[in-house]
Amino acid sequence: MDISPVLNFLHCETPKAWLDYAVQHIDILLIDHAKCEKKAASTALSLMFKYPSRTELQEKMAQLAREEILHFEQVFEKIKERGIAYTILTPSRYAGKLRKLARDNEPDKLVDFCIIGGIIEARSCERFASLAPLLDEIEPELAKYYRYLLKSESRHFEDYLILAEKYSATDINQRVELLLQEEAKLILGEDDVFRFHSGVPANRG
Amino acid sequence: MDISPVLNFLHCETPKAWLDYAVQHIDILLIDHAKCEKKAASTALSLMFKYPSRTELQEKMAQLAREEILHFEQVFEKIKERGIAYTILTPSRYAGKLRKLARDNEPDKLVDFCIIGGIIEARSCERFASLAPLLDEIEPELAKYYRYLLKSESRHFEDYLILAEKYSATDINQRVELLLQEEAKLILGEDDVFRFHSGVPANRG
Repeated sequence: MDISPVLNFLHCETPKAWLDYAVQHIDILLIDHAKCEKKAASTALSLMFKYPSRTELQEKMAQLAREEILHFEQVFEKIKERGIAYTILTPSRYAGKLRKLARDNEPDKLVDFCIIGGIIEARSCERFASLAPLLDEIEPELAKYYRYLLKSESRHFEDYLILAEKYSATDINQRVELLLQEEAKLILGEDDVFRFHSGVPANRG
Repeated sequence: MDISPVLNFLHCETPKAWLDYAVQHIDILLIDHAKCEKKAASTALSLMFKYPSRTELQEKMAQLAREEILHFEQVFEKIKERGIAYTILTPSRYAGKLRKLARDNEPDKLVDFCIIGGIIEARSCERFASLAPLLDEIEPELAKYYRYLLKSESRHFEDYLILAEKYSATDINQRVELLLQEEAKLILGEDDVFRFHSGVPANRG
């Protein structure tokens, strides 16, 4: 699948140090990935509760939430097959730091949530695409699964940006660029923990 | 569909006064029903976040959440078709009052949440079954849709009770009976507002 729109959108690719660490810590990656899918679904549901009058948001977020839950079920199945104990890991700073950047007034807050949602989906897409070729030999089924996920992640990225444009009174480009700059800092910087959306893990010993 | 297990389970049927009011206030019914589906999905997701080590709960709740979101999409489509403005109505006392009865210690809290979840699904099933014949002439499509929902509501009711039994160290019958008694009071009593799970609306003028 051609994910060049996602790569052109993001300001940076995932550093090699994160990828090297990830392929050696597939268990943590799977456990945190399952959580991310569940979190993406609950974030979509929260938006639906918060903005009942936004018809397109209701429809797009409902579909997105259903798909994310289905992905959770798929990842959970893989965790079970491997005999990994499923748990909820402490989050990395990524999503929390991004959400803190959202403006307070409406509809700017909604617009920012949609842009941030789009950025997170784009990053997920980029990470799956970067991980897949590294896993082809050591984890061929997982590599195949990550490639399968690209399609929906890339569609979710587009859906979120369409909603952001729709609900913004002004051009969103400047805001998108600012949030992308901050996102790139989180991805390129060092992080205390290794997670699906973390920066480069500080302790790679 | 035979919903006698649901009817045998509940302590009372929906009063005629509620049903009479409901068929005359289909708009409110649809708007609140859409919210209930969304709420059922978010409650299932909350349980999944709260009890990550409960494998069967993860699986059953994920499937339930996906189905409830699909139902939301279906009801939302009906609301749109009718040109009704979608909004979130203040809740009736029903679910809040039931959840307050949950015990504080674990795993009793989880067990009670599962029993309460099962009771709410059973009540939804009973209400759809009671409404359908009253709508056959005036709202044939809606009557058909409510009959279609019986199957999943009844399965969700069973799933919740299976989980309650699984996670309880002791027999759950006494607890189920106590919660059913309280539920019947909420259904048979008068309520300030008319909602999908409300008691009989006090002001039926």
